[in-house]
Amino acid sequence: MRLRFMRPIAALVLLCALIPAQAAPPDDRTLTGFDRESAERERALEARFDALLRKEDLREWMKRLSARPHHVGSPYDRENAEFLLGLFRSWGYDAQIESFDVLFPTPKTRLLELIAPEKYTARLAEPPLKEDSTSAQTSEQLPTYNAYSIDGDVTGQLVYVNYGVPRDYDELDRRGIDVKGKIVIARYGGSWRGIKPKVAAEHGAVGCIIYSDPRDDGYFEGDVYPQGAYRNEWGAQRGSVADMPLYPGDPLTPNVGATKEAKRLDIKSAPTLTKIPVLPISYGDALPLLKALGGAVAPVGWRGALPVTYHLGPGPATVHLKLEFNWDIKPVNDVIARLKGGDLPEEWVIRGNHYDAWVNGADDPISGQVAMLEEARALGELARTGWKPRRTIIYCAWDGEEPGLLGSTEWVETHMDELRRHAVLYVNSDSNGRGFLEVGGSHTLEKFMNEAAHDVSDPEKKISVGERLRARRVLDGDADERREARERADFRIGALGSGSDYTPFLQHLGVASMNLGYGGEDGGGSYHSIYDSFDNYVRFIDPTFDYGVALSETAGRVVLRFADADTLPLSFGDFTETVGRYVREVSKLADDTREEIAEKNRRINEGTFRAVSDPTETYVAPKAEAPAPYLNFAPLQNALARLQESTKNYQAALNSTAAQERLRSRETQGQLDEVLKGVEHSMTRDAGLPRRPWFKHQIYAPGFYTGYGVKTLPGIREAVEQHNWKEADEQVTVAASTIQQVAAEIDRATALLQGGR
Amino acid sequence: MRLRFMRPIAALVLLCALIPAQAAPPDDRTLTGFDRESAERERALEARFDALLRKEDLREWMKRLSARPHHVGSPYDRENAEFLLGLFRSWGYDAQIESFDVLFPTPKTRLLELIAPEKYTARLAEPPLKEDSTSAQTSEQLPTYNAYSIDGDVTGQLVYVNYGVPRDYDELDRRGIDVKGKIVIARYGGSWRGIKPKVAAEHGAVGCIIYSDPRDDGYFEGDVYPQGAYRNEWGAQRGSVADMPLYPGDPLTPNVGATKEAKRLDIKSAPTLTKIPVLPISYGDALPLLKALGGAVAPVGWRGALPVTYHLGPGPATVHLKLEFNWDIKPVNDVIARLKGGDLPEEWVIRGNHYDAWVNGADDPISGQVAMLEEARALGELARTGWKPRRTIIYCAWDGEEPGLLGSTEWVETHMDELRRHAVLYVNSDSNGRGFLEVGGSHTLEKFMNEAAHDVSDPEKKISVGERLRARRVLDGDADERREARERADFRIGALGSGSDYTPFLQHLGVASMNLGYGGEDGGGSYHSIYDSFDNYVRFIDPTFDYGVALSETAGRVVLRFADADTLPLSFGDFTETVGRYVREVSKLADDTREEIAEKNRRINEGTFRAVSDPTETYVAPKAEAPAPYLNFAPLQNALARLQESTKNYQAALNSTAAQERLRSRETQGQLDEVLKGVEHSMTRDAGLPRRPWFKHQIYAPGFYTGYGVKTLPGIREAVEQHNWKEADEQVTVAASTIQQVAAEIDRATALLQGGR
Repeated sequence: MRLRFMRPIAALVLLCALIPAQAAPPDDRTLTGFDRESAERERALEARFDALLRKEDLREWMKRLSARPHHVGSPYDRENAEFLLGLFRSWGYDAQIESFDVLFPTPKTRLLELIAPEKYTARLAEPPLKEDSTSAQTSEQLPTYNAYSIDGDVTGQLVYVNYGVPRDYDELDRRGIDVKGKIVIARYGGSWRGIKPKVAAEHGAVGCIIYSDPRDDGYFEGDVYPQGAYRNEWGAQRGSVADMPLYPGDPLTPNVGATKEAKRLDIKSAPTLTKIPVLPISYGDALPLLKALGGAVAPVGWRGALPVTYHLGPGPATVHLKLEFNWDIKPVNDVIARLKGGDLPEEWVIRGNHYDAWVNGADDPISGQVAMLEEARALGELARTGWKPRRTIIYCAWDGEEPGLLGSTEWVETHMDELRRHAVLYVNSDSNGRGFLEVGGSHTLEKFMNEAAHDVSDPEKKISVGERLRARRVLDGDADERREARERADFRIGALGSGSDYTPFLQHLGVASMNLGYGGEDGGGSYHSIYDSFDNYVRFIDPTFDYGVALSETAGRVVLRFADADTLPLSFGDFTETVGRYVREVSKLADDTREEIAEKNRRINEGTFRAVSDPTETYVAPKAEAPAPYLNFAPLQNALARLQESTKNYQAALNSTAAQERLRSRETQGQLDEVLKGVEHSMTRDAGLPRRPWFKHQIYAPGFYTGYGVKTLPGIREAVEQHNWKEADEQVTVAASTIQQVAAEIDRATALLQGGR
Repeated sequence: MRLRFMRPIAALVLLCALIPAQAAPPDDRTLTGFDRESAERERALEARFDALLRKEDLREWMKRLSARPHHVGSPYDRENAEFLLGLFRSWGYDAQIESFDVLFPTPKTRLLELIAPEKYTARLAEPPLKEDSTSAQTSEQLPTYNAYSIDGDVTGQLVYVNYGVPRDYDELDRRGIDVKGKIVIARYGGSWRGIKPKVAAEHGAVGCIIYSDPRDDGYFEGDVYPQGAYRNEWGAQRGSVADMPLYPGDPLTPNVGATKEAKRLDIKSAPTLTKIPVLPISYGDALPLLKALGGAVAPVGWRGALPVTYHLGPGPATVHLKLEFNWDIKPVNDVIARLKGGDLPEEWVIRGNHYDAWVNGADDPISGQVAMLEEARALGELARTGWKPRRTIIYCAWDGEEPGLLGSTEWVETHMDELRRHAVLYVNSDSNGRGFLEVGGSHTLEKFMNEAAHDVSDPEKKISVGERLRARRVLDGDADERREARERADFRIGALGSGSDYTPFLQHLGVASMNLGYGGEDGGGSYHSIYDSFDNYVRFIDPTFDYGVALSETAGRVVLRFADADTLPLSFGDFTETVGRYVREVSKLADDTREEIAEKNRRINEGTFRAVSDPTETYVAPKAEAPAPYLNFAPLQNALARLQESTKNYQAALNSTAAQERLRSRETQGQLDEVLKGVEHSMTRDAGLPRRPWFKHQIYAPGFYTGYGVKTLPGIREAVEQHNWKEADEQVTVAASTIQQVAAEIDRATALLQGGR
């Protein structure tokens, strides 16, 4: 992508500052993976594609698909599957429904009461609103609950644990507060929700309540629904609490598809169910509980926006929590639609978005689903007029994403072998809103994604969405980020953790993946509530569906280019530079951690904690810890050096006239694709990550204690974070050999370009 | 002071790292300004002094002095003056009451009502509480109001302006909100209160309401009174809003004492009265107003802890504010008590603390007043047993501090000439609480203050208060602060801005000054309310009065050492090093500001603001600004180099055997004192600071737009902050010549030590 953003003078300065390896393509007309001529054809096709997109379709389909609650196993979820199937077929796709049978608990009993110092029984219900036409469909709505909480009937003193992540318990330790035998109340935020009961149970709590503090998505952020978009007093966030950082998908069938005949674990032994009962509540229900807490005042950063002094407890607030679930096996129905490729039908470009919701789910996930449908419809139209993709395109409307990426995970596990042979890309979306391009993915796709973002126009600003994204980074970033946003040839894309259906593709299968959407001007608090409705969406999120169409343009362009490119449009410069950053990051993390431990020990030795603490408050000074060793990062640095060398050689080979000549042959193109496809797979290891073999990718993983949040070079990073020095040392070696493996794959591609095989 | 804090190994490392100029005194037994023998005598005297201190006295006097409201002009204020006079006289002091006649407005009419979109009339009253015995003295209490607000009767739409400081109005500008003709509501905090109406009026507002947000000293911080110490729903903060950064003291008699015969300004032309009416309110009264605001949602950092979405307005909330005051001339009665010195009676060590309050004022100011009284009593006892200070000691119990440092300012202005000849030190205190030593002052006193803090034991921890202070800086500081807290020979003391009675001494007169107190474990929200009571103090602030005694020990030690030292215990190493920091700071500020302007202009040119802004929200892009020039800091750097040289020479001369020999002569001691006393005065200039000639000190001043907050090298710093480059350039020259002047004074001292005159 060109540096179109710069004014002439600034651009002149930049020309000197640019690193040659990062330089933009010679002109606007070239595209990674295409020669000049095919790029021209491609752009003409894309113009026809854009012209076919109609925002009226998005609006109409959203209204249809979100008209009734449609969670896993519900009648309307099934109706939607049939509707989607019909649409794909009507557009000429070879479409089927593929079903799996998964564990999906729904509530039978939900009771939460404050029994001391006074009585309060939680309402646990979101009231219908006259301003929201679907909010009164109470008979079909799933009540507010957390899926995969175990059954339980517990009573205990309450302790407020902030976000309920490990460092919050360290803070409680310092105040002499133990949650053993207690019920914790955590607020949403700061981690994926499933981390909260997991960490609470690790610390001995017997129950876990999660509430939505108005600080995080309620009145503190903006006017509440229906006056504004934010969560009102009785809104609560449903959601899964399965231990997905261990493995996503059906808790009973790890690693294999949940087909009829699959071998299933006992529910009792399923490791991803919670260890303690968990219930989400509204801030209306949380207020009496928090008000009744005594004990020390919570640290400043823990205090939310409720009009009370936040205390930690334990007690005198004592609560009784009783939960029972129907532990049913329910079907999930994935709608899979194929448009077969011409030249390279064995290479599959896969595009997916889920369609199941917690309730009506107009935003999550229908806003993304309808953008995907519109893409698919337009491609169908193009196909009708004679165009045929070189590679096979597969559209997937996933079911069961909400409870735990069920539809996508079971499909990937079922088709593992053929996907490994055929899949060249997975493109995901989920909720979509108004604002800025949000993109995460494999860094081998970074340059490609920059080219695509360069060609999509922002509906509000009539500049490219890439340009708008850079402008925001200039405004919000620190000096380094600002300089990069202006000067780096490509804007950076984020690394993927988890939270949507790309996870099985990227982290289990090892296929280059990306996740796309728009947002940032569409704040609100309807997430996983009955108020995530059509009425809400068209008032507060993307009223005109212009950003829905922008998503169709973006993801459709990605699919089209990948399907039609001469060779797979992967490139390695950005990837290698990014891995270099990760290497520096984990090395700095190790240094910082070593210094932190040394500083802590020094403070203990010098009596600093004792000298400062207020004798009228409980304060337990931290315990001394063995000094952290210096880790041997040399293998990683050597691997990185080799990767840099391989990347440089590949780029040189690719730019050579001889290679360009060779690449005119379809056979060579196919051979190169085969090698390029293998590069992402070479980032995985069969053994997976320590204690979670399902996660095979060695560069990206969801954090074991963050959930959705990504950990890059996860093996090393998490070992250092856990102060597990032996494992950190081992994982440096593992990561180094993985990176050597990636370099070897790139070398194979280089050899091929140089006329070898 | 010794590095007592270090463990042996760390200390060993430090010995190598220390800068010789900063090195600790050769042993614990030496004291700046004393030879070994006199230091030994001094320490023995201090041990006797400490043994005389009785915390029962503090408790009893606090109960007595805070028993009834005692604001300026009230009957009980007068009774307290007589009581204090009696005490000083009973202890053998030559004590008088010295009175001035000052403008002191009190409320006649206070009306605040919301008139649209609904009606609400503010209560404007703090209810008596059964848990607080003096809170029911309603007939004697001053109502909640801001002194020196003008009369006014205004109606207008409301705008929320956050803290109401200049950058808040920049933010409003960007959102297209103009306060012209409007009434602003600002929250307390972020600046001294008097800044809020000043800046509001500069922007065209017609009225100003200031409220106490529970985020800042209410339930967000802790349980509210009477359950806890924080401000309750109806608590409001009284206080002065005179434009004290222009000049403090009686608004009608700038520069001269407000004696009977003084020439007075017309009230109408008094420049320090506000330009618009101002009223402080509770959060109970603020809530209906804020709830009724519409318009854009306030930026995140502006939102407080009330359970509403904070909107900016303007309107629909419309308020009517009517204020009328009794514009009376009232007496302020300073109690001045002298203990005449033996050897050097013409050198005056002055110690002060005010006694007037807004209501009962147990904390502010009686907690400091009683500590001072106990010091004075103990010195009286010592004098009775034959001890006589070498220098004259003057205790000052100031009246009228609350409305505007009236008692101290008028006294200093009245006695300007003799004070310039005689004053060698001013030591101030005000409120006092539990926790850590808090010390600010002239940096020529930094080493002296470290020695004093080394010899006072923390009542809770039984380590020195200096050691405890360093430990806190280790815990709270960043890496640099931490290293300094551990390794620097002296802990740093803060620079003084304003907010208590040191201002006329330091910034108008040019006498070395310091301000002392304890705090940090005594949070609360009783400030300037009827709940600042004895009942409150003994529950939440310093229940045992142990820190009251610690203040007596600290300030008493300072007074004793200054009064008895062989030569004035001022030193210049820390001062010079600190001025070097200030020079680097202002130079960096100029660089940063230049870069900020360039970056802003670049964003305007590149269309960044336009590209990012949300078209559904009002956003006014900033205007381009002329690039900032590079300033010539060379004169300042040359002056600093000379100061460093002078300081080094002085230190070398002082350490020479010849000088030590010469300093055995009383005559030389007196001559050296005379020169040393002149050093602080050499930091002032008769012309004062730009646009505020009353403020003569060129190193320290209260900020023109911060009020209490200090600005160091204020002439340069404020010019740069205001982007006034011409003035910044001039002020660099002024500051440089001031620093040259200081160096010349130090050179005079050096010459004297070397046997010159």
